[in-house]
Amino acid sequence: MSAGAAGDWVRTVALPAPSLGDNTADAERLTAALGRELGGAPVDVDLGLLRRLPAMLRERGYRVRCTLFPDRGRFALTGVDAADTPRVAAGLAVDLGTTRVALRLVDLATGAHLADHGCDNPQIAIGPDVLARIHHADTPGGLDELTRLVVDGLNAAVARICEAAGIAPEDVVAVAVAGNTAMTHLLLGLDPRWMIREPYIPVANRPGVLRAADLGLRVGRWARVFVFPNVGSYFGGDLVAGILFSGLHRRPETALLVDVGTNAEVVLGNRDWLVGCAGAAGPALEGGVAAVGMTAGPGAVDRVTLDPTTGALRLRTIGGLPPRGICGSGVIDLAAQLFRTGRIDVRGKLVPAACGARLRVVDGIRHLVVVPAAESATGEELMVGQPELDSLVRSKAAMYTILETLALTVGMRLEEIGTVFVAGAFGCLIDPRSAIAIGMLPDLPLERYVPIGNSSLEGATLALTSAAAHAEIDRIRDRITYLELNVNQEFMQRFSAAKFLPHTDMGRFPSVGRESLNRHSGV
Amino acid sequence: MSAGAAGDWVRTVALPAPSLGDNTADAERLTAALGRELGGAPVDVDLGLLRRLPAMLRERGYRVRCTLFPDRGRFALTGVDAADTPRVAAGLAVDLGTTRVALRLVDLATGAHLADHGCDNPQIAIGPDVLARIHHADTPGGLDELTRLVVDGLNAAVARICEAAGIAPEDVVAVAVAGNTAMTHLLLGLDPRWMIREPYIPVANRPGVLRAADLGLRVGRWARVFVFPNVGSYFGGDLVAGILFSGLHRRPETALLVDVGTNAEVVLGNRDWLVGCAGAAGPALEGGVAAVGMTAGPGAVDRVTLDPTTGALRLRTIGGLPPRGICGSGVIDLAAQLFRTGRIDVRGKLVPAACGARLRVVDGIRHLVVVPAAESATGEELMVGQPELDSLVRSKAAMYTILETLALTVGMRLEEIGTVFVAGAFGCLIDPRSAIAIGMLPDLPLERYVPIGNSSLEGATLALTSAAAHAEIDRIRDRITYLELNVNQEFMQRFSAAKFLPHTDMGRFPSVGRESLNRHSGV
Repeated sequence: MSAGAAGDWVRTVALPAPSLGDNTADAERLTAALGRELGGAPVDVDLGLLRRLPAMLRERGYRVRCTLFPDRGRFALTGVDAADTPRVAAGLAVDLGTTRVALRLVDLATGAHLADHGCDNPQIAIGPDVLARIHHADTPGGLDELTRLVVDGLNAAVARICEAAGIAPEDVVAVAVAGNTAMTHLLLGLDPRWMIREPYIPVANRPGVLRAADLGLRVGRWARVFVFPNVGSYFGGDLVAGILFSGLHRRPETALLVDVGTNAEVVLGNRDWLVGCAGAAGPALEGGVAAVGMTAGPGAVDRVTLDPTTGALRLRTIGGLPPRGICGSGVIDLAAQLFRTGRIDVRGKLVPAACGARLRVVDGIRHLVVVPAAESATGEELMVGQPELDSLVRSKAAMYTILETLALTVGMRLEEIGTVFVAGAFGCLIDPRSAIAIGMLPDLPLERYVPIGNSSLEGATLALTSAAAHAEIDRIRDRITYLELNVNQEFMQRFSAAKFLPHTDMGRFPSVGRESLNRHSGV
Repeated sequence: MSAGAAGDWVRTVALPAPSLGDNTADAERLTAALGRELGGAPVDVDLGLLRRLPAMLRERGYRVRCTLFPDRGRFALTGVDAADTPRVAAGLAVDLGTTRVALRLVDLATGAHLADHGCDNPQIAIGPDVLARIHHADTPGGLDELTRLVVDGLNAAVARICEAAGIAPEDVVAVAVAGNTAMTHLLLGLDPRWMIREPYIPVANRPGVLRAADLGLRVGRWARVFVFPNVGSYFGGDLVAGILFSGLHRRPETALLVDVGTNAEVVLGNRDWLVGCAGAAGPALEGGVAAVGMTAGPGAVDRVTLDPTTGALRLRTIGGLPPRGICGSGVIDLAAQLFRTGRIDVRGKLVPAACGARLRVVDGIRHLVVVPAAESATGEELMVGQPELDSLVRSKAAMYTILETLALTVGMRLEEIGTVFVAGAFGCLIDPRSAIAIGMLPDLPLERYVPIGNSSLEGATLALTSAAAHAEIDRIRDRITYLELNVNQEFMQRFSAAKFLPHTDMGRFPSVGRESLNRHSGV
């Protein structure tokens, strides 16, 4: 994981007082002193800050704590306070997901985490997935509406996370945003329409460093926002942030990074090469599913195991609360347990005989009761329907096919991968055993799977405090070879073969075969 | 004079169309092509322009004419048009004087001058001089008012000069402003209060490149404004621009640059060293004088000669119109002719016996009629009063003393100066013979005096088209040693000695002595 030199960009300087012998202007007096601290780097001062500088310096006796943010080989001055200010200089890391937004507040001087917060992406009101939102952006006023929604949502979230940490939003002087290409485009108000039309062109690959005020973010008045670069329309800054955090790009041996969200995003590589790939995994894993799916949050079922004696489903919820729905990791666990116990077949179809009293038929569609009405938070039965299971099968098939395609492209077998970093949003970490059981991830020894949490948020956190991270981000972005799935002819054939649990080629999942054998032999 | 490579920053590029094999984003596709044109320089795109870029590029078939402006080793993209656009890419040079504002519109592609325009600085309504305005800036709302006045005035002037040139204000994509330190501070809304209090500290020495929109200038939406750097509170960007245009800083032999306005600003130097000095010259030369003084403009007396036979005053006005008042060069000429004809004495006092019927006493104060009522534009007598003449004597004494002090400081005699570049605003060029006659400028052979017009405006013009000029501006600014007059003990003694016409030490002005001798002997 990348090293971060916290405090580099929070500098307290005592300026030589102006005199007849040194009548340098206020701005240059300050930037020269900061430049000496920063190894000679030039420092830029916004006009608005420049207007306040004379009073600020004199009121504070020329001893000031300055906050800075790196921008294209220079530094932007983002705040000036008294040297002994009790105010925290805070940074905000944002993982801007299609469904969920995760935020973290850090103390820029120490690197300490002050608070974490999560909320839904308010654009869900427009459409559950990227495609629906891009189409909406194409309607009159649609893009502005989407941008306003996410900016307003972020401002509300900032207010809440700052309250939780006991600081003011104005204390936030740096923001780092990692998100997929569509989400970052919609945040910046950039027209995404050409991203979904061949040849799939984003407006910008490197949005870089922007003024928070220009984006309408209510944080520090001169705060800067770093937006992670993307590699293409379907390979976003969230994954670049994930690579940064995983350290994949610095390891001699080849490793895999897997991020399962609305999109299945994967990177294979080492310190010499990086190949990335992404494809729509469907909404099954991010709460977009009707009836039972929900995003990770209090009351979400995030783990499903089997009672070793009765074979009954045992549910764990976030916060230990009565269940309200199932989040992504819970859905994968559930499918694995239903398959292990024969309640769904190799095509993911519910088997009535095995489901018994838990089977319901609603509007002619089969459902399985996961939580009885008496145990649920809503007082109603929580059910998973056949369409949701079908959706999950497509998602897992997409993920496996993407991995297979990627490995084939670089001429290596999936079994040769030494480490698999599994990223997952906070509170919803996929259990590799379940993912293997349904054939979503390859059947590797479990110790090769390394959960790394919300790697996008972690990467964004690194960008708030480490100069080395910024240089690394550029190098990572420029080194990635993006494998465009839309033009790969064999993909659909592999996808069809992967739509069985765990796969039409059972030889690829020996551990699942053994488990199945054990089960059938009554162990 | 500096070479300018016009057209460097207007580039027409044909971009490779996006394809599955090259899905680079719109912004990076454009900036990469521009970077190749500009020798690899990085190009930045404002968020607002980025938002329009996809439509712009596609509507124009990926063939576009781009305008750029240099900013801290990078380029800012200031406009994108169709490759065959008939629109002119225009630059606006501004000499922001305390009294007068001179503007010039240039075609950035060819360097051609499209129009010139002049207007009063609307801040005159607040106060005639720098000091009055700085005091006003210290009152509640005063600074905002001053800034709004000059910005509104510039916007009105831009509308007029654009109309004259037949272009739209939106076609102006680059602005270069040269002005004294106080005027540029007031334009930028920077608090000037510490400039007039020891130790005389400006807010910024290098305001650099700003967005026109941030300043409220109604020109091209993404236009940039370059503000010339200053050396201190009393040595402004106008003089840095003047040095740039004069080429003083590149010559092997030592030369002098003299700019007479509200301030007397002078620079002595060569390619090895530059010493600058400035002091209040009084309002006598910039139209701030009551009764008769006016800024250069239609009807202003700009040249006063003597009828060789009658000794009568002969006046020339700007535009050949009936006289309305006298501008700076006219005042100096007038004083010289009054002194030559004995109408004023060595202390600048009116000599009643020599003035004859032209003498008036108003409220106990002596005046001389310069223009009879029948010949003036107003139908009233144009008079010059003793207080105005006293003010002129102080101004000329200040200028001479500044020159003397400067020469003493570098250990050279004024007579050793090979070239004197005399800057003066358009329509009001000082006649060195008159300036010498009253002892304002040293008594050097006339051929050493080189009039260079409004060198501040000319320097600003260079900054619009020449990359070399920008590097030179930085070097000039950093090389200037500023001589702070306020702390020089001997200055007042020299000043007192210089308050005689031409000087208490007549030996310094041999040509004036000869002329005087000739006159007294009846030649």
